[in-house]
Amino acid sequence: MSLIVQKFGGSSVADAAGITRVARRIVRTVDQGHQVVVVVSAMGDTTDDLLDLASQVCEAPPAREMDMLLSAGERISMSLLAMAISALGSSAQSFTGSQAGLMTDEFHGRARIVEVSPHRIKTALEAGHVAIVAGFQGMNTVSNDVTTLGRGGSDTTAVALAASLGADVCEIYTDVDGVYTADPRVVATARKIDRISSDEMLDLAASGAKVLHLRSVEYARRFGVPLHVRSSFSDLEGTWVIPNSEDTITFEKGEPLEQPIISGVAHDRSEAKVTVVGVPDVPGKAAEIFGILAQAQTNIDMIVQNVSTKGSGKTDISFTVPIVEGSAALAALEAAKEKVGFEGVDYDEHVGKLSLVGAGMRSNPGVSFTFFEALHQAGVNVDMISTSEIRISVVTAADKLDGAVRAVHTAFGLDADSTATVYGGTGR
Amino acid sequence: MSLIVQKFGGSSVADAAGITRVARRIVRTVDQGHQVVVVVSAMGDTTDDLLDLASQVCEAPPAREMDMLLSAGERISMSLLAMAISALGSSAQSFTGSQAGLMTDEFHGRARIVEVSPHRIKTALEAGHVAIVAGFQGMNTVSNDVTTLGRGGSDTTAVALAASLGADVCEIYTDVDGVYTADPRVVATARKIDRISSDEMLDLAASGAKVLHLRSVEYARRFGVPLHVRSSFSDLEGTWVIPNSEDTITFEKGEPLEQPIISGVAHDRSEAKVTVVGVPDVPGKAAEIFGILAQAQTNIDMIVQNVSTKGSGKTDISFTVPIVEGSAALAALEAAKEKVGFEGVDYDEHVGKLSLVGAGMRSNPGVSFTFFEALHQAGVNVDMISTSEIRISVVTAADKLDGAVRAVHTAFGLDADSTATVYGGTGR
Repeated sequence: MSLIVQKFGGSSVADAAGITRVARRIVRTVDQGHQVVVVVSAMGDTTDDLLDLASQVCEAPPAREMDMLLSAGERISMSLLAMAISALGSSAQSFTGSQAGLMTDEFHGRARIVEVSPHRIKTALEAGHVAIVAGFQGMNTVSNDVTTLGRGGSDTTAVALAASLGADVCEIYTDVDGVYTADPRVVATARKIDRISSDEMLDLAASGAKVLHLRSVEYARRFGVPLHVRSSFSDLEGTWVIPNSEDTITFEKGEPLEQPIISGVAHDRSEAKVTVVGVPDVPGKAAEIFGILAQAQTNIDMIVQNVSTKGSGKTDISFTVPIVEGSAALAALEAAKEKVGFEGVDYDEHVGKLSLVGAGMRSNPGVSFTFFEALHQAGVNVDMISTSEIRISVVTAADKLDGAVRAVHTAFGLDADSTATVYGGTGR
Repeated sequence: MSLIVQKFGGSSVADAAGITRVARRIVRTVDQGHQVVVVVSAMGDTTDDLLDLASQVCEAPPAREMDMLLSAGERISMSLLAMAISALGSSAQSFTGSQAGLMTDEFHGRARIVEVSPHRIKTALEAGHVAIVAGFQGMNTVSNDVTTLGRGGSDTTAVALAASLGADVCEIYTDVDGVYTADPRVVATARKIDRISSDEMLDLAASGAKVLHLRSVEYARRFGVPLHVRSSFSDLEGTWVIPNSEDTITFEKGEPLEQPIISGVAHDRSEAKVTVVGVPDVPGKAAEIFGILAQAQTNIDMIVQNVSTKGSGKTDISFTVPIVEGSAALAALEAAKEKVGFEGVDYDEHVGKLSLVGAGMRSNPGVSFTFFEALHQAGVNVDMISTSEIRISVVTAADKLDGAVRAVHTAFGLDADSTATVYGGTGR
């Protein structure tokens, strides 16, 4: 008997038929003799519908009330799922984030989990129930208010519960068959990855692969939770994300961990490029700028500092930020312009980021050449470059991104013989 | 400064425009210098939509999960209402039943309040917020699960909070201008009652007047909470329901309490008539039968035992039950048929109950005559009769009910010169 955490996104439970289909899969797992904890997102369009209602009554809704509102979504999907399981002759109890012991900090809309105390979940499992837990939500330990975890929150809920309960595996059900070597919507010949290390998955997720959210991968890696990303529309094996340290692997997949040189190509259109122009080239100016941005709660991604033009005493610093945080970042910089002494700020939302991810990249000197040669052949201009041990990322013009992804995917021999099946939508 | 509890039903918050209209009324009360606690039901059709979803995934949903599901409805309406108040420049915080300290017993779907501990509501009021509380729901003190209070639950939530907080008045906003001498949908000339005692209101509510639920009137009477039933669509004064003991009245309406002989005519189509035929006419048989029905959780209303047919040693016992409990009552009786020794059970759903309610009825001997004469003139056959200190109720054929209500209303001079305004729908 294993303890399995299964996470189902909003597109898997979009309607009554979807809920019943998910219930059947859960009951099948129970019938195989396993204990099952399920984390579920709000049904299909529920969140958008609630956001729409909110916008009709208030232009700038208080964050506390927005979290209260949005948390109704999982309450509906989880209780319906428990009913559907009961209709199949099995037994389930649903729990809110607060009831499941998901305690968070007080930052509404983007709360972080500070503690997981799943006493009630353990009791429910011991009593022979399936425990259904609301994804995406928790309770603020400061004021006992409902919080939401922000984008990717349901994945994070699932991984956090799996870690806290010592689950054997955390299965992330989604609308694709697993993690692909590139987005199958862009690269039709993308291949499904059977196994990938947490480190590589982390770089893929950070680079824009949307199938798993960065936070949940970080959490899984940190607590040694094996993830199995698979389709809720099929019974196929998906992608196993294996914690790096072998001794944290407790599940029964005995085969040695494959280490392909290249895992895949990720891309991301959600960031903008900011260039701070004419920064005095004296020590501490970069720190000053990034201090200002941190105070504005800006999440900086790639950073490039240009070489100082000889004799000018000035340099440019470029970085990328999520587009949704762009205006806050610009306002913070503008307010500090005089104090820091830079000349101006350029802002460009029409950029895309492409990342090639794979272990052993540094020790294989041909990788960089093949990568940039492929971009060159595809007529792609590179704006920014950053590299890590297992990743090369470049920023290009947005309209060049798809072609760049396809060119790099082909150049590294990742193309499959057949094309991938793609389903619609992504959830919380 | 008064502390005012305002309760808004589902039809008042059916859409964004309704929510904003309700928010304006709340803010107006705040601007008059009062502290305001608001109890709100789920938006318009939300409950029906959720019930429909439940029926699609499960024929007999577990009661715990049904309560979890339905409680999402108020979560949506209350957070939207808090947002709408914030959009008007005032400040509000929403609270679930559990957060508002509404502790109940463990009977899902029809839980009763066992304790109210509104610490968080007091804190919110002291901090200058409007406190919005989810109607209809609470938390089970046995297992800490979400419960719902059943029909009329939001009114009960409002009255319970008003009692616990020592509110000056509990305003029940609804889709009619107040309590009428009869249902204005049946009697076009029904008159609005300006003031009525809790006792009379209790009998009106128990007799089927739907504007206030029986439980909330009982609660208000017991804890001396003055109710003001009024329309959410107008600013008119509605009906004041005055606690009987004068010394519990703390609000500032100084005029003496009117005591009209007749308060009004109520009717009810939600009950069925059950007759247990051929019951052995020996002591203890009635107790045996009602013991069986109590075990089946049946709510008995009117009871009539016919006089034993001379020499037969047998009698008939008739009573009314809510139609929704009819099949359970029949099954329980059928199972005990042999043991109790009765001959059979008749069951009739096509009946209606008419009640004439008024203080001082017993001391006015002409009342019964006028009542039965009016029914006779209207060609209405009476199946069952029961009376109390301030009420006469009769059961008639369902298709005779409306005519009977109009006849009695006219006979007691209750008709107004003009016709009443009627809006649609009723809420939780």
